[in-house]
Amino acid sequence: MTPDLIAAAAKRLTGHVRQTPMLSSPFLDAIAGRRVLVKAECLQHTGSFKYRGAKSAVTAYVAQGGSAGILAYSSGNHAQGVARAAREAGLAAVIVMPADAPQVKVANTRALGAEVVPYDRFGESREAIGTALSQARGLYLIRPYDEPEVIAGQAGCGLEIAAQAAALGVERADVLVCCGGGGLTSGIALALEGIAPSLRVRTAEPEGFDDVARSLISGRIEVNAPGQTSLCDAIVTPSPGQLTFPIMARLCGAGIAVSDEEALRAVALAYRYLKIVLEPGGAVALAAALFRFDGPEGDAVIAVASGGNVDDAVFRQALSSLPALA
Amino acid sequence: MTPDLIAAAAKRLTGHVRQTPMLSSPFLDAIAGRRVLVKAECLQHTGSFKYRGAKSAVTAYVAQGGSAGILAYSSGNHAQGVARAAREAGLAAVIVMPADAPQVKVANTRALGAEVVPYDRFGESREAIGTALSQARGLYLIRPYDEPEVIAGQAGCGLEIAAQAAALGVERADVLVCCGGGGLTSGIALALEGIAPSLRVRTAEPEGFDDVARSLISGRIEVNAPGQTSLCDAIVTPSPGQLTFPIMARLCGAGIAVSDEEALRAVALAYRYLKIVLEPGGAVALAAALFRFDGPEGDAVIAVASGGNVDDAVFRQALSSLPALA
Repeated sequence: MTPDLIAAAAKRLTGHVRQTPMLSSPFLDAIAGRRVLVKAECLQHTGSFKYRGAKSAVTAYVAQGGSAGILAYSSGNHAQGVARAAREAGLAAVIVMPADAPQVKVANTRALGAEVVPYDRFGESREAIGTALSQARGLYLIRPYDEPEVIAGQAGCGLEIAAQAAALGVERADVLVCCGGGGLTSGIALALEGIAPSLRVRTAEPEGFDDVARSLISGRIEVNAPGQTSLCDAIVTPSPGQLTFPIMARLCGAGIAVSDEEALRAVALAYRYLKIVLEPGGAVALAAALFRFDGPEGDAVIAVASGGNVDDAVFRQALSSLPALA
Repeated sequence: MTPDLIAAAAKRLTGHVRQTPMLSSPFLDAIAGRRVLVKAECLQHTGSFKYRGAKSAVTAYVAQGGSAGILAYSSGNHAQGVARAAREAGLAAVIVMPADAPQVKVANTRALGAEVVPYDRFGESREAIGTALSQARGLYLIRPYDEPEVIAGQAGCGLEIAAQAAALGVERADVLVCCGGGGLTSGIALALEGIAPSLRVRTAEPEGFDDVARSLISGRIEVNAPGQTSLCDAIVTPSPGQLTFPIMARLCGAGIAVSDEEALRAVALAYRYLKIVLEPGGAVALAAALFRFDGPEGDAVIAVASGGNVDDAVFRQALSSLPALA
């Protein structure tokens, strides 16, 4: 990973990715007891930041003369990003997805023209299925986070955060990022290292899936205990990536874990006060900012709201967590 | 209304109003059978475009040395815009609101520090109450649409639309605007007249409340029949304004009316595919683009999604209108 890779990706993605807004509400500030800024990546094409990395990887592949179909494995957001980026490049896409992925993610991935291959995430290895399919069918594999061009694409979110924070007068702040394998986290951290080093990245994870927080403490890659469940399907990755962990270990502050209940509450508050739709896994950073932030005081705390592909039943459940209006 | 007024408002509002994003989804394009762009004003401060006009009027008042409290009457979105703008200026705010306004609008207006005076919108005149209160308590009245500085503030939305459409390669398009009294519609129309005359504004209204569409046909101010109801509480104004109607008559194409059911469906589709939260009255322009648009073919159809202050029960009702995912 080099600054050149990030700059080149930013150039390729200009005019393709959306610059997502930095939102805020005095009501969220009151709940958090501090100024909160929310980077609304749910408003990115395909409803999550994942389109950035997917578009970066597909365009880099095509620029090198690649013309094979694209293969990806994904809990559902990388799936949609790859499906859209592949279709835009005129390439086929095959996506290995959990059989129990949210319906909206499966439906949108198929509607974007991709072939979906379901697998049992409790009994099978998506990496093994992906590698085998890639070889058998001559497809080009784009990993969801341990992939330099993907990280370089996600870094674009960090470049925008730096510019938007500066425009809002925010110089010193923790930037909380919803973290699964660490592609978005490490991309943002690399981007900020170069242009806004007083913005420090910290990871937000669901309780029971705080492998990155524990890895940052122990200094080596830790794995989540098997058999746990969470509503935060987007970020229940078992461990940080080989490529992403050293970046996070070098650049990130201590991780924060939140409960599913807190994530749902953040979904509901984002609906009520920011008018955006989040999925639980895309709301853990906001939940950490609202309910678990432990300082230090900066000019604000910045939460990346990473995705909004939520099934209706879960969204209704989130709305039920809201207190009645006075 | 002069171009100077619009330019001066834009200058005062820079750094205060949010530049809202122009969103899109291939799924919405497929439903409409054409390219659809959605100007997401629900992401403006206070959850609707109304903050633009309120901030414009309050800052103009303060710039002229005004220091009295502010009075407004409003179905609930102008209320929040005025409450926030007044608080930012250190002025008190008193808002006359319907007793049956959505709870979220009343609660947020109060939480922004305003005094709310409820009235019966079926039996009392808000204009009469507002004028009497203004005189009795020495308050400065900011009307919701028949107010030059308010229209000048809303025009900022049109300036952004022109720039964003150009950046997306859209030169010729109809711009559909959710229309109550016509403040947003006439503001956008004036802005586009100056810098993007091939973007033509058209009004979108609820069926039974299509006073502006009928006024545009007859050439004089028409009034809605009394006693009707609609979920689109934000835009059930009885007739176009004295100030706004001549502007709309000069610049706007034919109006479009949609049913409450179509507005709810648009709320749900915006949730699913754009990840934004709309209220029914803020979704009628999107509904018109998706279900009622009658051409002409341009480079796209642009729908202004004007507000997102929706009560939970109505939002749940909208979600129920979605077809199951395939």
